[in-house]
Amino acid sequence: MEGDPMLRLRIFDLNCWAIRYLSKRRQERVRLIGDMLRREGFDLVLLQEVWSEQDYSDLKAKLGGCYPFSHYFRSGVIGSGLCVFSKFPILDTLLFQYSLNGYPYMLQHGDWFCGKSVGLVIIKISGITFNVYVTHLHAEYCREKDAYLPHRLVQAWELAQFIRHTSKAADVVLLGGDLNMHPEDVGIRLLRGWTGLQDAFAEATRFEGCEDGCTLVPNNCFTVKTELLPFPLGIRIDYILYKAISSFTVKCEELKTTTGTAPGMDIPFSDHEAVMATLYIQRQGQAAGAGLGTAEPMLVDVVTEARTEVGVGLRAAQQQRYSKGRMAVLALLLLLLQAAAALGALAGLAAGQPFPKLSFSLLAFLAIGVLLLATGLHLFHTMEVKMLQGTEEQMRMALRVLQEHL
Amino acid sequence: MEGDPMLRLRIFDLNCWAIRYLSKRRQERVRLIGDMLRREGFDLVLLQEVWSEQDYSDLKAKLGGCYPFSHYFRSGVIGSGLCVFSKFPILDTLLFQYSLNGYPYMLQHGDWFCGKSVGLVIIKISGITFNVYVTHLHAEYCREKDAYLPHRLVQAWELAQFIRHTSKAADVVLLGGDLNMHPEDVGIRLLRGWTGLQDAFAEATRFEGCEDGCTLVPNNCFTVKTELLPFPLGIRIDYILYKAISSFTVKCEELKTTTGTAPGMDIPFSDHEAVMATLYIQRQGQAAGAGLGTAEPMLVDVVTEARTEVGVGLRAAQQQRYSKGRMAVLALLLLLLQAAAALGALAGLAAGQPFPKLSFSLLAFLAIGVLLLATGLHLFHTMEVKMLQGTEEQMRMALRVLQEHL
Repeated sequence: MEGDPMLRLRIFDLNCWAIRYLSKRRQERVRLIGDMLRREGFDLVLLQEVWSEQDYSDLKAKLGGCYPFSHYFRSGVIGSGLCVFSKFPILDTLLFQYSLNGYPYMLQHGDWFCGKSVGLVIIKISGITFNVYVTHLHAEYCREKDAYLPHRLVQAWELAQFIRHTSKAADVVLLGGDLNMHPEDVGIRLLRGWTGLQDAFAEATRFEGCEDGCTLVPNNCFTVKTELLPFPLGIRIDYILYKAISSFTVKCEELKTTTGTAPGMDIPFSDHEAVMATLYIQRQGQAAGAGLGTAEPMLVDVVTEARTEVGVGLRAAQQQRYSKGRMAVLALLLLLLQAAAALGALAGLAAGQPFPKLSFSLLAFLAIGVLLLATGLHLFHTMEVKMLQGTEEQMRMALRVLQEHL
Repeated sequence: MEGDPMLRLRIFDLNCWAIRYLSKRRQERVRLIGDMLRREGFDLVLLQEVWSEQDYSDLKAKLGGCYPFSHYFRSGVIGSGLCVFSKFPILDTLLFQYSLNGYPYMLQHGDWFCGKSVGLVIIKISGITFNVYVTHLHAEYCREKDAYLPHRLVQAWELAQFIRHTSKAADVVLLGGDLNMHPEDVGIRLLRGWTGLQDAFAEATRFEGCEDGCTLVPNNCFTVKTELLPFPLGIRIDYILYKAISSFTVKCEELKTTTGTAPGMDIPFSDHEAVMATLYIQRQGQAAGAGLGTAEPMLVDVVTEARTEVGVGLRAAQQQRYSKGRMAVLALLLLLLQAAAALGALAGLAAGQPFPKLSFSLLAFLAIGVLLLATGLHLFHTMEVKMLQGTEEQMRMALRVLQEHL
């Protein structure tokens, strides 16, 4: 078996930043991306932030010749933005929407409306089954005070769990996407430790591209320079991760990133840099075993750290649920008071209407508005609490199983 | 291997109808259920509609002795209502929330608030890995004009896909739950055909209980008699389904249902009847193959039928999205008109305020209310459209793969 031929697989991953009406020079860039993909002829292309289905259709039409198979994952209000183009037939797909994904009222951040998800496509190449995952986690808007950390950790946990549970019959697992986490962040350590996935950048024999493999760099003309001030080289948040599950080995021969501008162009493909990996997959004599990657004692620490952060998020969500509930009750009380006053006035109990009619009605409308809004938010935070509790509970169970192993 | 000992597994499934403040004699019934479960000592207990976490905690405390392992699945505003009690250690869990689940504004139906899901628990008994799924699909409120059929079909499809993708390393798959579908409904045929699951009622060597295995019967004092008028015997909507994936066989030796009242009691456990199966699992020489259950040409018909129904739902959702969007635009126009009139009056262009102030403000508030509500609903139906399109697309891909097989 050792002499089996090696399979060479070239993978392309990019957060395309293709938000209709908002992203600069979107159509031009999508055209450039399509041209380059057609020219380069990768085996597998994993894209994020293709929010417009029209852009996907245009790409599909353009790439039909060299990537005859593709899939667009639909979810949320805007769509998941995730899509896959493949040289090889896509046998099956599955979408898993993360249970938490920011807040609908944070309109300026907008993550909630995207229905952030992980998409799975199954392909088979030369008899090898590949489970290919593409995802995009919640953005980090302020690293010092990251209000979305618990949500992103829940997503990283759900991603890891989804991969573990769905990849048991796969030979090779590939994950590409914008994880919105730096390589040393707890979420990445959790994801890698709990799934055993390896980082193509860290494993690559050859590397070419931005220093440290960064994918959000200051010399990309579309990045917000102030956000990158603490990181003069940029940050690495886009990844290609992989592992072999059954009797296969995977080796990353080469990893490349684009470097601020697209080769031969005056603008970059996106505000993110693309990540391109060349993997070699070979059948080997004995099964590698689907064990966990990180040494288990270290994994216990990582899960514990993640669980602590989820606990912090849980307490914040409980506080929000309480305060929104209290606001709803106060608005209801005000309404009841007004109703009593109005009834009193109608029954002639009061000498006259204590307020002018206009202010009285405006106040009532305001109270109704606050009541509806606060009730909605209370329900939303109730769901948030449930999901954070559920994740904490799952992590507790994982820790129990890990500790029993040790 | 043929001589391997048989494993006997007794499974209990019940929709407990334990809605706080709404379900009749809830606490008394939960107590009765707990007593019976302790007395009977099943191996595995799958419960639905345990909406109150307090009820779950009470059951857990009572059953700790004979069912040391348990899991409660949290989701939605109220919780998924799903929980599992087991004699054997639960090794891992995963929750998948269905992407569609009714409408938040259908308060009288309330399904949306439950975050209907499928829960997976993995247990290992005598070296055999069991993937145990528990679920509860959207209720059917009117069989003649079932507005929720497309949503329930999406759920049935997602359930089937989730089971297929997560059970590849399992030896035996078990599914218990209230599927809210009659045995011959397209959703059940889709689920069974696409997963290869077998119906314990149809396969049982011995059966004891309500005629035709019905689980919603007229002589249960909690059922709504008028709803069962077209079905004098009742209907069967609660199921235990199973299949062996690797080299095992599963045989249903006995299936029982309760019959309107709990044995020795004056009231039933719930408005549903409980389903109890005794399965025998044995290792066999050769692997059974994880093929599809139903013959493939038949499966093509079932998927096509389901896809047609999803298409009907899609067109209805598109219509809703359009009409809500139009309503939002009209409300916005009214607001703009009012703003123009107000500005005109302020600038002294008009002879006087054309409306009394009170009606003017009330109208503005009404327009704002309609604008917000219609926008919210428009966004909701946009998501609905996306998910229905996604499911249709997945079914199309499934049909392609099936037809290639034929």
